[in-house]
Amino acid sequence: MKAVRLHAFHDQPVIDEVPEPAIGGPLDVIVKIGGAGVCRTDLHIIEGQWDAAMGTPLPYILGHENAGWVHEVGSAVTNVSVGDTVILHPTPTCGLCRACRAGDDMHCVASTFPGLSTDGGMAEYLLTSARACVKLDPQTQPKDVAALADAGITAYHAVRKAIPLLYPGTSCVLIGAGGLGHIGIQCLAALTATQIIVVDRNPDALKLAEQLGAQHTVVADGGQVDAVRDLTGGGAEVVLDFVAEQGAENDGFAMTRRAGSYYVIGYGGELHIPTLDIISTERNIIGNIVGTYNELAELMVLAQTGKVTLHTRAYPLDAAADALGDLDAGRVRGRAILVP
Amino acid sequence: MKAVRLHAFHDQPVIDEVPEPAIGGPLDVIVKIGGAGVCRTDLHIIEGQWDAAMGTPLPYILGHENAGWVHEVGSAVTNVSVGDTVILHPTPTCGLCRACRAGDDMHCVASTFPGLSTDGGMAEYLLTSARACVKLDPQTQPKDVAALADAGITAYHAVRKAIPLLYPGTSCVLIGAGGLGHIGIQCLAALTATQIIVVDRNPDALKLAEQLGAQHTVVADGGQVDAVRDLTGGGAEVVLDFVAEQGAENDGFAMTRRAGSYYVIGYGGELHIPTLDIISTERNIIGNIVGTYNELAELMVLAQTGKVTLHTRAYPLDAAADALGDLDAGRVRGRAILVP
Amino acid sequence: MKAVRLHAFHDQPVIDEVPEPAIGGPLDVIVKIGGAGVCRTDLHIIEGQWDAAMGTPLPYILGHENAGWVHEVGSAVTNVSVGDTVILHPTPTCGLCRACRAGDDMHCVASTFPGLSTDGGMAEYLLTSARACVKLDPQTQPKDVAALADAGITAYHAVRKAIPLLYPGTSCVLIGAGGLGHIGIQCLAALTATQIIVVDRNPDALKLAEQLGAQHTVVADGGQVDAVRDLTGGGAEVVLDFVAEQGAENDGFAMTRRAGSYYVIGYGGELHIPTLDIISTERNIIGNIVGTYNELAELMVLAQTGKVTLHTRAYPLDAAADALGDLDAGRVRGRAILVP
Amino acid sequence: MKAVRLHAFHDQPVIDEVPEPAIGGPLDVIVKIGGAGVCRTDLHIIEGQWDAAMGTPLPYILGHENAGWVHEVGSAVTNVSVGDTVILHPTPTCGLCRACRAGDDMHCVASTFPGLSTDGGMAEYLLTSARACVKLDPQTQPKDVAALADAGITAYHAVRKAIPLLYPGTSCVLIGAGGLGHIGIQCLAALTATQIIVVDRNPDALKLAEQLGAQHTVVADGGQVDAVRDLTGGGAEVVLDFVAEQGAENDGFAMTRRAGSYYVIGYGGELHIPTLDIISTERNIIGNIVGTYNELAELMVLAQTGKVTLHTRAYPLDAAADALGDLDAGRVRGRAILVP
Repeated sequence: MKAVRLHAFHDQPVIDEVPEPAIGGPLDVIVKIGGAGVCRTDLHIIEGQWDAAMGTPLPYILGHENAGWVHEVGSAVTNVSVGDTVILHPTPTCGLCRACRAGDDMHCVASTFPGLSTDGGMAEYLLTSARACVKLDPQTQPKDVAALADAGITAYHAVRKAIPLLYPGTSCVLIGAGGLGHIGIQCLAALTATQIIVVDRNPDALKLAEQLGAQHTVVADGGQVDAVRDLTGGGAEVVLDFVAEQGAENDGFAMTRRAGSYYVIGYGGELHIPTLDIISTERNIIGNIVGTYNELAELMVLAQTGKVTLHTRAYPLDAAADALGDLDAGRVRGRAILVP
Repeated sequence: MKAVRLHAFHDQPVIDEVPEPAIGGPLDVIVKIGGAGVCRTDLHIIEGQWDAAMGTPLPYILGHENAGWVHEVGSAVTNVSVGDTVILHPTPTCGLCRACRAGDDMHCVASTFPGLSTDGGMAEYLLTSARACVKLDPQTQPKDVAALADAGITAYHAVRKAIPLLYPGTSCVLIGAGGLGHIGIQCLAALTATQIIVVDRNPDALKLAEQLGAQHTVVADGGQVDAVRDLTGGGAEVVLDFVAEQGAENDGFAMTRRAGSYYVIGYGGELHIPTLDIISTERNIIGNIVGTYNELAELMVLAQTGKVTLHTRAYPLDAAADALGDLDAGRVRGRAILVP
Repeated sequence: MKAVRLHAFHDQPVIDEVPEPAIGGPLDVIVKIGGAGVCRTDLHIIEGQWDAAMGTPLPYILGHENAGWVHEVGSAVTNVSVGDTVILHPTPTCGLCRACRAGDDMHCVASTFPGLSTDGGMAEYLLTSARACVKLDPQTQPKDVAALADAGITAYHAVRKAIPLLYPGTSCVLIGAGGLGHIGIQCLAALTATQIIVVDRNPDALKLAEQLGAQHTVVADGGQVDAVRDLTGGGAEVVLDFVAEQGAENDGFAMTRRAGSYYVIGYGGELHIPTLDIISTERNIIGNIVGTYNELAELMVLAQTGKVTLHTRAYPLDAAADALGDLDAGRVRGRAILVP
Repeated sequence: MKAVRLHAFHDQPVIDEVPEPAIGGPLDVIVKIGGAGVCRTDLHIIEGQWDAAMGTPLPYILGHENAGWVHEVGSAVTNVSVGDTVILHPTPTCGLCRACRAGDDMHCVASTFPGLSTDGGMAEYLLTSARACVKLDPQTQPKDVAALADAGITAYHAVRKAIPLLYPGTSCVLIGAGGLGHIGIQCLAALTATQIIVVDRNPDALKLAEQLGAQHTVVADGGQVDAVRDLTGGGAEVVLDFVAEQGAENDGFAMTRRAGSYYVIGYGGELHIPTLDIISTERNIIGNIVGTYNELAELMVLAQTGKVTLHTRAYPLDAAADALGDLDAGRVRGRAILVP
């Protein structure tokens, strides 16, 4: 089959002809890929930034945002059948550790991460696990939803955790209205009646934010902390930071009010916060990573009822280099999707 | 009446003869003081560290940990009567703002802080509010419990917030087994079956910690992060940091495991944490300040059933300078209490 | 002033000229009534059904759903000023008991209930407490929102408690799309993405339910339990029962699925449930009564942003008998409101 | 191997020589039984009371409270190894449905129940699943803990759910201090500081209850509802009913206070409750069934640290009839355990 493989860091991945994956274990599932999202993390992988953490032997197949149709199943698979349309949780889990038994898939002690730690979905077929498969309405087009598999679940997970804090009368600031953030806005609008304030450097992103449900937008031009404090009477109950680098992280904490919570979703920066500032106003800093299998299933309900939609641009698998290049150059509106 | 008043920062407070307080408003309560705790914060007040935040005009009466007997009540007071034994929540609240209506006394928009923002309890009588009075069993000696009014409630509040995370099989690290910490250990032992690990520089404090219910103790001699990781297999579900300065704050975060939570209770230091460290393991940093009125009432149940006890040393009011001096010199075992 | 007073059970209330109320206590507030809702409970009061529970000496003024403008305030009132537009929580509370200190206004040990236990708001002026006043945008018309003071808060309270159970993919059945129920539908639609199924005997009520956000409606013609089970694949995660009499109560429990919860809001019937049915599927029965002060404030945010709207018909105060008669005869669309 | 098999309802089970079970699926585990609890449910099974619900073809092996050592494992088992000491969750689950993915093992759509729906553990070997195995300290004796596998987890699950309601100052009534109840008392004492009140008909059971941590005991001689109301000033915040038949169920609800919760754990009776009684005081009725895999693991921590202990009496497997007879005749103190 054809696959987009990385042979060396800093080189472009190439289209290789490789053997199709084969069922090995009883819970294995092979999925015929219908859409594989192209993500900024793929650019970081190519640049070698994930080599230290993952150490995956080259060459390997990229692609960690995948949806498609079940092609073959292992002997113990009971939740999906050949032909089912599925979207794939990004980290197949062991199912037996305490975290798995509590539903905290992100904290499984033995999960894998196809596209980072093993062969991913920029190919005709992907080997994954029954535990990663969320079954979809057969009319769903995998290419329309693939980007929800990672960008979507991450935004949804953070929003869902914040819901109890976002009763009517509160404000939620969302920093960064890009790939994840524009899903986060839609999740907030679907699941709460909080006042949504979106902060971004890009005026076009802010226009989209308004269309998706933001009540207020703030250009991040240096005065964003004061602007948010003015809009909220001193700060927001919740700040969701999809950037968390280049100063956004300390701005984000500063945008919370007394007893407020700052949710870190992006990364790259460093927090510098006196403990006095944390205790005197009893504020919290909340980490977030991916989401649970059930959360991905819930997000797909929002997608199938039209409450969360994605802007996508499809590329044939052979054009993976074009898709990566367009993403790197800022030429992609919404999300680039490879369609084998 | 006699009162311990501060006339100038950096000078010792003196015993003055001042008029007794008078009922002004309908919810006012005057309490005959039975015990007033002497706290490290009093030393900080004398040094002028709270002047910027509070700006209270000098001279004023110190004392923010108070218990006694109701002496006189305003026209609208219904919850206590003259003669009742009471302990006083440290911050009388307005009762009408959203925070008060939610029970979050710490976030009242119009509270006062006797002993910091107005005359305190190192005197024969104190003017407070019905909303600060927690009624006690008449056999309770105010001097035995006064220190629970601030040190106690603060420790209890943080422990209570952490309970849902501390199911059997977890570990809770407690940094700093001093005035607040030794109450925290007792609250943990009374309310959870978590494994309690106490970290302190002082071997004597660690001995006391073991007597109060700690399963493990760790001397903070430089190897404490590694020691905690070894004891917990990689970190604790919860770290309660009663120090949060001089490096304890960054050590404390480092002692948490995946999905763990670091509770900041002490202050003085500064956190430096890459956002990547927060998201990759989905950890949290939780602020804590004082506690609610109901939490103080709950803590008094623990005290009256013998589950939380305080080591105290009584001084007559006239000996306030001795008490402050002994505290500053490290000569107080447990808590110094002024008894008018 | 003019007031609608009940002189004898089973007689119609009459318009009396009575003295205006006067400020008595420091937290008292006198409100000039702008709108007083006419509720089915008023019919029950006239019929004497509340006499045993309340025992209020006749004659007294009806009216427990009130909004208007602050006319005079007691000496300790700080949250509202003369001229403010306000809606009134139905049960002024003491502010000092454990329930009040936890924000559970419904469980205050010393609350009153104007219109039931003391003079109500079908008059030109009402005596209430600062603790009952929720301040509104000055452009709000009291007559447009008065019915949210009791019908609204009760529906909102139940919905808010159920939110954590109503993630995307779940179903919520709402039994009874009348005065409370039609607000409940709007609250569900504003605060969750659950599938809303409305059950009622009245096809007109079901048409309105669809306009307000119900995805499915079921006529309660005897087959409603089976119909709900079919729509939900065996039962709903949550059933909100605004009827809870004449068999709806046992139907309602039967409409829940495994691990489901049945919320009782209406009353009049009697549950008959084998304990085996409760434990074998681990289902819950949840009581609901009125709501908290903060919940009323939150509901007003939904009202002021257009997410919850009421159909009302205004009557002059003198026409109270007409309003009660129309309500009793089923001639009121939405809610009858008396406007002094 | 030897096994205790039921051949016909109303007949005593007999000791048969049957083939040892064999590994069939990849997650299968065969456990060499070290202890199998004899439970009142076994008497009910023999009487045919579970035939309608389970319909298991006779003959089959009894025993649903099992612990032992891993004897053989399927190809995909990673959490236990041959030789490990294990206790077995009573219902091996599918691991793939929404309930399993949320950690709600009790609500798995495809679980089995060895000893009820398939061959159980009153035998030398038992076929179960990796998902049922909780690994224990190798020094644990299976016969000492086997009864925690079903009686224990059920009591622990209910207590754990009630913890947030049981802050200091509350009361918890526990009805029925038998097999489950005496574990419940120990769990309450280990995990809360609530006042524990135990109600039972049997004075000996009440004596044991006091030794295990009850502050008050009440003989169920007809005056138990009044006695509890007197002890609690009107009712308890939580009632845990391990009986829930013969009137205990309606007494139990009547023992709750305003905003209280009645937890149903036993079964056999029928609740008769006016909906007015539920809403006027906003009380709840909470179903409970077994518990989660993680809860069993947590309970084993309490057992291994000595916070929960069982009184047991061992019988050889051949003496199963004696054990059942002694249980039926009320001659067993604590729990009868078969040891192959």
